[in-house]
Amino acid sequence: MDVYGIVAKKRDAKKLGKEEIDFLISDFTQGRIPDYQMSAFLMAVCINGMDEEETHCLTESMLHSGQILDLSFIDAPKIDKHSTGGVGDKVSLILAPLLASCGVVVPMISGRGLGHTGGTLDKLESIPGFKTSLSLEEFKEALKRIGVAIIGQTREIAPADKKMYALRDVTATVESIPLIVGSIMSKKLASGCDGIVFDVKVGNGAFMKGLSDAERLAEALISVAKRMGRKASAVFTSMDEPLGFAVGNALEIVECIEFLKGRGPEDLREVTEALGVQMLLTAQVTSDKGEARKMLRERIANGEALEKFKEMVENQGGDVGIADDYSSLPQA
Amino acid sequence: MDVYGIVAKKRDAKKLGKEEIDFLISDFTQGRIPDYQMSAFLMAVCINGMDEEETHCLTESMLHSGQILDLSFIDAPKIDKHSTGGVGDKVSLILAPLLASCGVVVPMISGRGLGHTGGTLDKLESIPGFKTSLSLEEFKEALKRIGVAIIGQTREIAPADKKMYALRDVTATVESIPLIVGSIMSKKLASGCDGIVFDVKVGNGAFMKGLSDAERLAEALISVAKRMGRKASAVFTSMDEPLGFAVGNALEIVECIEFLKGRGPEDLREVTEALGVQMLLTAQVTSDKGEARKMLRERIANGEALEKFKEMVENQGGDVGIADDYSSLPQA
Repeated sequence: MDVYGIVAKKRDAKKLGKEEIDFLISDFTQGRIPDYQMSAFLMAVCINGMDEEETHCLTESMLHSGQILDLSFIDAPKIDKHSTGGVGDKVSLILAPLLASCGVVVPMISGRGLGHTGGTLDKLESIPGFKTSLSLEEFKEALKRIGVAIIGQTREIAPADKKMYALRDVTATVESIPLIVGSIMSKKLASGCDGIVFDVKVGNGAFMKGLSDAERLAEALISVAKRMGRKASAVFTSMDEPLGFAVGNALEIVECIEFLKGRGPEDLREVTEALGVQMLLTAQVTSDKGEARKMLRERIANGEALEKFKEMVENQGGDVGIADDYSSLPQA
Repeated sequence: MDVYGIVAKKRDAKKLGKEEIDFLISDFTQGRIPDYQMSAFLMAVCINGMDEEETHCLTESMLHSGQILDLSFIDAPKIDKHSTGGVGDKVSLILAPLLASCGVVVPMISGRGLGHTGGTLDKLESIPGFKTSLSLEEFKEALKRIGVAIIGQTREIAPADKKMYALRDVTATVESIPLIVGSIMSKKLASGCDGIVFDVKVGNGAFMKGLSDAERLAEALISVAKRMGRKASAVFTSMDEPLGFAVGNALEIVECIEFLKGRGPEDLREVTEALGVQMLLTAQVTSDKGEARKMLRERIANGEALEKFKEMVENQGGDVGIADDYSSLPQA
């Protein structure tokens, strides 16, 4: 196999085979292919694209560059949610404990913010003491005991993505559907979930502008998830206005806690419920949308969702006191 | 100016401005832009192209990255010939002394072989002692006194090209008309010639396959030359069969000397005359093709062209004896 030939093939908009993609990803991850060759390849993909099969191969190669968690020892549906990102995204922080309080295990491994958008991890880290860097063993133990944990991408998970993303970030090759799909899915599938609900952001504040791009991204994500034996569906949410009132990591944590106490702003409630309902359906907890919505509202009303949030914060070393006293959060 | 924005613009097939191109080429040449960003840019150019104006700007930026010779102190037409390369190219070695014997100054600064094709310099270096690395002062002195010199690209001439070519060579970004034009013309225009005849190779053995690609390349080369105030024209020559009988550096030197002694194979004679005639017309030595052809034949018949070849070899430190005794050339 030679790198030059593979790069030239994609430059000429030809289809790459599984062996070629595996070779490229594996040798790049192991430092045997220099950055300048990889960035030429990434630009060729960015402009000429990849078909469904190539995108699937890319995702598999990136996934197998690291460890893949086996959560089959936990006897419950394991559903993850992934947002394609956007300013003011705080829905994950609410959904993870809320779904866990409904008996769904949520194994969330989150990337750092993409491009100019802030990420879930940055928000969580504004809670004093909160650690987003659990070991994979601690992560599995938390999922078994509490049903929810949110951690950052570790070095064991999809190292190919970490290296590729660093390069994409400085070579204008972020905005590419196959590369976005490979990046998202290699991390998500490594977490051991058996279903994923995609929150595809549409509008100015988001990554993919306009509905048609967002639809293409959603289709590509779902197609790869299904090829890999996972259940998957997508919910389109508007990002023309940021959700809720709060912008800023600590302020958004406060808004999430308020939400779990039953005092969420209307727009945030709508999006959260739409995604939460889809996660319950994907988990096959129920097949009725009305019932799913009722279950989510009950878990907030009876305090179980907030309780799950506190368990998660405590388990990850965070100051649970912030749930009742916001003054120990950093001032925005 | 930011590199990312410029790369993204070309990724999106938008037109770049003069300032953007100048910034990119100058900062890359000075080591302020890393290879991985430049290779992403080169791939974007390779796939999305550049229009005539952008190609002109690129050439100017690359040209001004180094020294530009001023040959106005020599009172004679200064005409260069450039071949787009191909297996078995030896025509430059004949044309340079032949035209000099007709009173045309030929300031030839040659690149190393592109891709898999051998270059003029490699052939000349098979003459014992021959130096292709004259200083620019020695080069100018030779042009004044003898009317011909063939040297390699020095560090002073178009350093941007040297650095860009090294990167293109390993990132599958060689085959791009604007990049080829920038590379050729930045070196050619630096040599101080006031006219150029392009020998555009067409066919399997050559760089640009098929006539339409060759035509586009020729058009782009001539357009940039004219925008920069030079006379320019192109001759298309077939490379489906290598010219002459000899392949191999020393053997081709022998074939050139034989040619200058009046014993050239028919196909080589045809191509050499076609280009030589064009050079005489471009130099305005005559405006009549028949007269130009007659002049070339006379200079071979009366030994003046061979004499000029010997002067050139001697001036550049080579063993002139090889013109009469081929045995001191390396055995192929």
